[in-house]
Amino acid sequence: MRLSELFTKTSKTVPADETARNAKLLIRAGYIHKEMAGVYAFLPLGKRVLDNIAQVVREEMNAIGGQELQMTVLQPKDIWEKTDRWDDNKVDNWFKTSLKSGTELGVGLTHEEPIVDALSEYISSYKDLPIFVYQIQTKFRNELRAKSGLLRGREFTMKDMYSFARTQSEHDELYEKAASAYRKVYERLGIGDITYRTYADGGIFTNRFSDEFQTISDAGEDTIYIHEGKKLAVNKEIYTDENLAKLGLSKDELVEKRGVEVGNIFPLESKYTDALDVYYSDERGNRQSIISGCYGIGISRLMGTIAELLSDDKGLVWPVNIAPAIVYIARLGDSDEVHKIADDLYQKLEDKGIEVLYDDRDARAGEKFADADLLGIPYRVVVSEKTLESKQFELKERTETEVKFVSEVDLIKSLASIKTN
Amino acid sequence: MRLSELFTKTSKTVPADETARNAKLLIRAGYIHKEMAGVYAFLPLGKRVLDNIAQVVREEMNAIGGQELQMTVLQPKDIWEKTDRWDDNKVDNWFKTSLKSGTELGVGLTHEEPIVDALSEYISSYKDLPIFVYQIQTKFRNELRAKSGLLRGREFTMKDMYSFARTQSEHDELYEKAASAYRKVYERLGIGDITYRTYADGGIFTNRFSDEFQTISDAGEDTIYIHEGKKLAVNKEIYTDENLAKLGLSKDELVEKRGVEVGNIFPLESKYTDALDVYYSDERGNRQSIISGCYGIGISRLMGTIAELLSDDKGLVWPVNIAPAIVYIARLGDSDEVHKIADDLYQKLEDKGIEVLYDDRDARAGEKFADADLLGIPYRVVVSEKTLESKQFELKERTETEVKFVSEVDLIKSLASIKTN
Repeated sequence: MRLSELFTKTSKTVPADETARNAKLLIRAGYIHKEMAGVYAFLPLGKRVLDNIAQVVREEMNAIGGQELQMTVLQPKDIWEKTDRWDDNKVDNWFKTSLKSGTELGVGLTHEEPIVDALSEYISSYKDLPIFVYQIQTKFRNELRAKSGLLRGREFTMKDMYSFARTQSEHDELYEKAASAYRKVYERLGIGDITYRTYADGGIFTNRFSDEFQTISDAGEDTIYIHEGKKLAVNKEIYTDENLAKLGLSKDELVEKRGVEVGNIFPLESKYTDALDVYYSDERGNRQSIISGCYGIGISRLMGTIAELLSDDKGLVWPVNIAPAIVYIARLGDSDEVHKIADDLYQKLEDKGIEVLYDDRDARAGEKFADADLLGIPYRVVVSEKTLESKQFELKERTETEVKFVSEVDLIKSLASIKTN
Repeated sequence: MRLSELFTKTSKTVPADETARNAKLLIRAGYIHKEMAGVYAFLPLGKRVLDNIAQVVREEMNAIGGQELQMTVLQPKDIWEKTDRWDDNKVDNWFKTSLKSGTELGVGLTHEEPIVDALSEYISSYKDLPIFVYQIQTKFRNELRAKSGLLRGREFTMKDMYSFARTQSEHDELYEKAASAYRKVYERLGIGDITYRTYADGGIFTNRFSDEFQTISDAGEDTIYIHEGKKLAVNKEIYTDENLAKLGLSKDELVEKRGVEVGNIFPLESKYTDALDVYYSDERGNRQSIISGCYGIGISRLMGTIAELLSDDKGLVWPVNIAPAIVYIARLGDSDEVHKIADDLYQKLEDKGIEVLYDDRDARAGEKFADADLLGIPYRVVVSEKTLESKQFELKERTETEVKFVSEVDLIKSLASIKTN
């Protein structure tokens, strides 16, 4: 995409009420627009990053047999009453609305009830299970405070997956498959080494712990205790001697850190399926409970976490897998020859399927370099009178200070190989 | 995808309150699930069709320079008050909700106001225009009645595009570009020949007509008068002698039909930009109004329209461009050899990037053929003892009754060529 055509621009100002580092950077770079606290629009470059993250998550969920669907935002009251999650005294972050007739509706905050209800039409026999389904969808939670940018939204994009199994051991297998898929997601997003599988409270209807994935960050809301050797952690909420003994851990091996919860997986036992009266018949025709689990990843929260952590004093630093473009072409100089060579390179890279941000604006070098850094594009190529003379291009990685000079052939080859990784 | 793994199944029953042909077929085929009147979830195969339609629309909007973004569902009251569209007496199909603090919020039904407000940060000079932006997003409208399945949803997927131009002639150019892109969309979706650009009321703030795209259907809500020779139509709402004279048409050339509005494009003059105080400075530094337009396509409505119109008494008939799979492999017979050959063909087609629904279930031929027809997959291939003997496969198009026998090489070649069209 040509920057002369992109309608967003970088800026030095952010809304006065914005305190979160991730949101400040993303607003300055023109990736997001603040509609209100905890509610952000995604502008073209931000939408690309969000979609790229969603696609990584989608591929990993598909790889373990997840079937993608799309549940509704509007929610009927009756199914939530069956599980006692309608009353605002029980679930305190509903947004609610109503039909013209006065019928109350919920605005979707999670989807256990409607998923179980929809699946009830398709589950009767043991032959219909197991099932692994997921969606990537906008969710709504009426948070009292929302000051952390994309880390805690009132409106946010989430991947929520649900598993339904015949037995505890079948459930456990799906659960661990999902945990492995989550690990792959964080690795592909460049935060694998700072993200810990973390034991947390399992909730009121299980004796088991749940599993969170916590990325180490001072911006995080959670306190966790990490075991570096075992690459795992324990959430403060279950940090008791009794629980640690169960987990085979002791306090002197653990280090306190702040974490952002970038994923959670939860054993639901048969709470929702029983409550909504969904069972299966086993081989002998006996009615059996269905064991389920739920698995969440905040897509927009991941974008905020990465913006928060993988940035420096110059701006954002996107991993190649989710960057809105792989390379930023900074065209310097006004001569026809520079324009022609830069246009030509842009076209060749796009033809190879390499996403480019082409800075074809009339602007000074300093301004272009500052924008390339703020936008966080992994590679920057300079086309100028000087590079024309040497018949090479100047190439720099976003995270390096040194520049390299490379021929066109080598440039295209190396950028194409990055793209296909 | 293997049907033995897909959790949905076809069914002979539909909800008692469902009267719309499109919804009945889509529910029976397991494409959608009815949450409540006008609110449908998209199950795996339905989600694929919806995404495929969205992708066709996206490609055509990108081709005319549209920049994709994603505005928010939650809407602050103040920007809608500036255009006098907040009051329920003015706009009667809002869903509204509120923050914990009591602050009222709207649930997005369209996005002129927030788009103009967000763009105001990026528009100051004539150099910043023109701009073409769009989103593909879930919208909410509090319809009193919603009995037409996907043709009129309370929650639905829409592509809404907005243009911002410096002059009326620049606006007109963008407007006609969008109209051409719309025509391409309908052609790619297989309804080009029954869809008419239709003059309709332009609303209160313009003397111009708006343009609708109406697909001929008895299920449609609109009455239109078509001119077959000119391939255009006139909506009943402006069907007066005076208007027809302006359009150079006379009543005796026109034929009355029912139509589904599958798109609309609307000249907004400078109503929203002026109301939200967004102007640009021209070359001489003078403040000028911005001329805008809005352009809608109901993605889920298109899915319903196609389901309604391109179906027969056996079920759905998806055009190749949006079908959830190109080919349905019906495996008949239990021998190891049949299983092996069918598995092998499935793998070869998937490796070529050809989407397959592989019916690997233990079921009778009649049941498999009925499902292939109900699901509306464009091609059906039979693998059976009989086809093994002849070393060929039996191939049938969904819309034909004749079967053909083809070699594996020819089968793969012809299916691959369809896919890349």
